[in-house]
Amino acid sequence: MGRLTAGVDLGGTKIQTVLLHERKVVGSSRVPTPATGADAVIGAIADTIKAAIASAGASIADLAAVGIGSPGTIDSSTGTVTNSPNVHGFETAKVPLGAAVSKMLGGLDVKIDNDVRVATRGEWQCGAGRPYRDLLGVFVGTGVGGGLVLDGELREGRGAAGEIGHTTVKDGGRQCGCGRLGCLEAYAGRARMEWRARRWQKDGRHTRLFDIMREKGRERVTSGVIAAALEKQDAVTVELIGKAVWALGIALANAQNLLDMEAIIVGGGLGDRLGRPFVERVEKAALPRLLLRDRPPVFLTTELGDLSGAVGAAVLAGA
Amino acid sequence: MGRLTAGVDLGGTKIQTVLLHERKVVGSSRVPTPATGADAVIGAIADTIKAAIASAGASIADLAAVGIGSPGTIDSSTGTVTNSPNVHGFETAKVPLGAAVSKMLGGLDVKIDNDVRVATRGEWQCGAGRPYRDLLGVFVGTGVGGGLVLDGELREGRGAAGEIGHTTVKDGGRQCGCGRLGCLEAYAGRARMEWRARRWQKDGRHTRLFDIMREKGRERVTSGVIAAALEKQDAVTVELIGKAVWALGIALANAQNLLDMEAIIVGGGLGDRLGRPFVERVEKAALPRLLLRDRPPVFLTTELGDLSGAVGAAVLAGA
Repeated sequence: MGRLTAGVDLGGTKIQTVLLHERKVVGSSRVPTPATGADAVIGAIADTIKAAIASAGASIADLAAVGIGSPGTIDSSTGTVTNSPNVHGFETAKVPLGAAVSKMLGGLDVKIDNDVRVATRGEWQCGAGRPYRDLLGVFVGTGVGGGLVLDGELREGRGAAGEIGHTTVKDGGRQCGCGRLGCLEAYAGRARMEWRARRWQKDGRHTRLFDIMREKGRERVTSGVIAAALEKQDAVTVELIGKAVWALGIALANAQNLLDMEAIIVGGGLGDRLGRPFVERVEKAALPRLLLRDRPPVFLTTELGDLSGAVGAAVLAGA
Repeated sequence: MGRLTAGVDLGGTKIQTVLLHERKVVGSSRVPTPATGADAVIGAIADTIKAAIASAGASIADLAAVGIGSPGTIDSSTGTVTNSPNVHGFETAKVPLGAAVSKMLGGLDVKIDNDVRVATRGEWQCGAGRPYRDLLGVFVGTGVGGGLVLDGELREGRGAAGEIGHTTVKDGGRQCGCGRLGCLEAYAGRARMEWRARRWQKDGRHTRLFDIMREKGRERVTSGVIAAALEKQDAVTVELIGKAVWALGIALANAQNLLDMEAIIVGGGLGDRLGRPFVERVEKAALPRLLLRDRPPVFLTTELGDLSGAVGAAVLAGA
């Protein structure tokens, strides 16, 4: 089969792995993220890579390199991960993820980067962002992350570029998970939406959001739960999504005025689930705030959906 | 004397020209901007260049190139300027500034860019920004402009990158000159401060700002007038500057969270006049809003002061 590259998207709930051949997905594998420590997570990553290879009818000898996108603070030069509160065993320890996975695969080259940056890379190189040299990828899920491509280069800064989720959209506004007030994520992140809905319910507001959650057999308000509640015009959900759209409009217009980019891609669990109608609402909220209203960026949905991260990780590794 | 380069900072009130030799200022000239049309402005630019050469004891034969920073929309490939409302004759017409100045100087090479970008270039290459590959220059004057250096390149975007003055700091907030509500410039730009102070005075609030303006023989609230009123603790001025600091804190922290830069340089007429104490207040307002509070950017005053633009224009031309 020739040169294959594996890309791994390590998340708090699942590990999604793809196998790329000439930038086409030829195999994949997906498992829940183990909740029993770093070694189990590392083992599961190696297993998904082997499973993806098997699903493509290839052999491990065809694998040229592996890329991994991980939440947390990444040192891409040493391949280590820290400060990743949603992955068991990665919360505070400095995990030598690159070296450990490499060892399990016979010394193969393993590259690591931040999960949002690899997802941006995936959409830029293999998805909706292909025509552009300048773009912002904004991923709306449990939290809100962002990745920037500027003049044909993925922006890293000092390692933390892209944190649009923690730009202020309302000074003194809603409490964010980061402890500050009025961040974009406090309005558009799913975790804060759920928190807000529970508080409103406790205060006596009626909502069907949690009934829908239970009907769907979920323990958390997933993107699917929100989409269903929105479709049923649940007032609390309608208000939460309205505020998310408003907050995204401010934050994306601010980024656009500062950077004058060609395109903005809205993805992530919630962004992908709500799709084109949601992105159009965000665009409509951003447009009146642009300084150059006659030359807005193109607003796009992702093309790769929940594979943006895994595909981008494979591209990072040289696919 | 060898190879000399001239840099011109074209402003609404003055034309500031410098002559550089090996990146050192060896001559300069400054005149009020003519209010009688584009030809007069072009003539005055050529005259300041000749005067700067004379002040250095050099001859026009020593001049290798000219750079000009201009407000408005710049087409740097053709050397034309449009949409520059504060320069007489440049308001709506497309002025072939580069070709016209070149013709008056015997066909010399003339390069043109936006005034804020050349000022950023000046501080980056010859001023406070020398140690950095990543920085934001924010120029607080009549309006608020910004310039970005990212990974050692001046960011242009599609020609309009850097407009931090028109990022929203308060949705639905104070009216900005651009027609929208709550822009940074609506709080931190001198023109909007003056407008606001006049309205408050009309509403019966006491302020000494306009007495100080008249005492200084000024017709507008200049940076010097604001500095004097602030020193006398004029309540209206104290409030205006307090709000400017607050707005800058939000906008700069948002830019930092998005871009993860090494340094932020605060200059412009008002920024330079209020100097280090003002920049320290802005830094203090920005810090609590940073996601990485333990790794803030360095906050700096300019080193070149009101020569940032002219020096940067000379650097643009190859100095």
